Amino acid sequence: MRLPSNPLPRIGILGGMGPMASADFVVKLVQATPAKSDQEHFTTTLDSTPQIPDRPSAIEGHGADPLPAMLDVLKHLEAAGCSLLAMPCNTAHYWYQQLSAGTRLPIVHIADAAAAWLREAAPCAKRVGILGTAVTCRLGIYSARLGNEWEWVYPGDEEFARFITPAIVAIKSGDLVTGRALFLEAVNRMAEKGVDAIVLACTEIPLVLKQADVPVPAVDSTEALARQTVAVAQAMYKNQQAASSI
Amino acid sequence: MRLPSNPLPRIGILGGMGPMASADFVVKLVQATPAKSDQEHFTTTLDSTPQIPDRPSAIEGHGADPLPAMLDVLKHLEAAGCSLLAMPCNTAHYWYQQLSAGTRLPIVHIADAAAAWLREAAPCAKRVGILGTAVTCRLGIYSARLGNEWEWVYPGDEEFARFITPAIVAIKSGDLVTGRALFLEAVNRMAEKGVDAIVLACTEIPLVLKQADVPVPAVDSTEALARQTVAVAQAMYKNQQAASSI
Repeated sequence: MRLPSNPLPRIGILGGMGPMASADFVVKLVQATPAKSDQEHFTTTLDSTPQIPDRPSAIEGHGADPLPAMLDVLKHLEAAGCSLLAMPCNTAHYWYQQLSAGTRLPIVHIADAAAAWLREAAPCAKRVGILGTAVTCRLGIYSARLGNEWEWVYPGDEEFARFITPAIVAIKSGDLVTGRALFLEAVNRMAEKGVDAIVLACTEIPLVLKQADVPVPAVDSTEALARQTVAVAQAMYKNQQAASSI
Repeated sequence: MRLPSNPLPRIGILGGMGPMASADFVVKLVQATPAKSDQEHFTTTLDSTPQIPDRPSAIEGHGADPLPAMLDVLKHLEAAGCSLLAMPCNTAHYWYQQLSAGTRLPIVHIADAAAAWLREAAPCAKRVGILGTAVTCRLGIYSARLGNEWEWVYPGDEEFARFITPAIVAIKSGDLVTGRALFLEAVNRMAEKGVDAIVLACTEIPLVLKQADVPVPAVDSTEALARQTVAVAQAMYKNQQAASSI
């Protein structure tokens, strides 16, 4: 365990789902931190274990269960002295309850992070599109967490088959050009459904699309999670300081 | 410790010096890995501890010794099951011998990585400029490791004071625009010295400069370290496979 003299909370990242999305999260975490020197940044441990079995395959019933591997990573993040955790993978939040039960550390939920962003950047939005894996959408990972504060709009079967699933495969194989072209199509189809905002609810999407590519306010779920993680870490630090001054 | 069934070497990163340079290294490590799916990427643990005391201050005799904190991070990377280590900070290589003596794991040396890049990308280069902290240059971190295979050219006192040191402070405080303008000046001054190639020998520099900004072949020390780390991990994996098939 870390020496107790280290005053700043340590942020733990359950990463590797996928590895580039995790790297993007580390960049966005640094960018989201208000700091004027190295020493003001939070300590961070990234455990990137891309060998965690594929999440959509497991949920669809034809792949190994990723939960044991994810719990193993959590144990390593605890041993590294982490104070809070984040998972830059939307689909992995299907196991959020089991993961939370498997650790004494708080896990920042990606849907909470996206909701905070929506309330701030698109306060009048009512119909919100979720662009993510078929699994994220069909299992209602966002609606189950956030309820009916927004009317959720999902891609149809054709969009998953023709654009979204092949785009994710392309990005994970390093072909960002194909991934971008396919996700642009998926965004246009979603915009035609008359949504007020779109959540880029797969952390592979912000690797190829920016706000300028989306005709309505877009929530980068990776960046939203980074901001929320920094906010939670800052609140922990303040509480810690307040407690130690009593 | 990791289960022995995990066949791929785990890459450990002694990070936080600075945090954005470490994040950039994680991105470049993923980009340097030939992989067609998540599962083909190396497992990686980044320990970003930006509270490691400032390296140049310590070497100049007016700051805390960073070695104990760096050794503490190495212990955590060992406990995380890492097989090899990398430090995306040129100045930190001043302590390379003590760090190597403090761990049973190999540490990829950033100067070896830059040398491999130079031999491949600029095979005819003779005079090579080193653009880094005053400490990296004055202590000859590159020349001590690489000897006289190249004629090393360093910035002068004026360049350190007017451009390089303020540029690094600016980048670490998040002001990339000022950092870039100052480093462009430093590059131009170095190019006027008649060098055949320039090593961007501070991992903050590639955050603001690209090859297109440099009039001679430029070695991005962060990317060079990423490539070399992947090469060493691949070699370890091959040896491991060969040993297990006997």
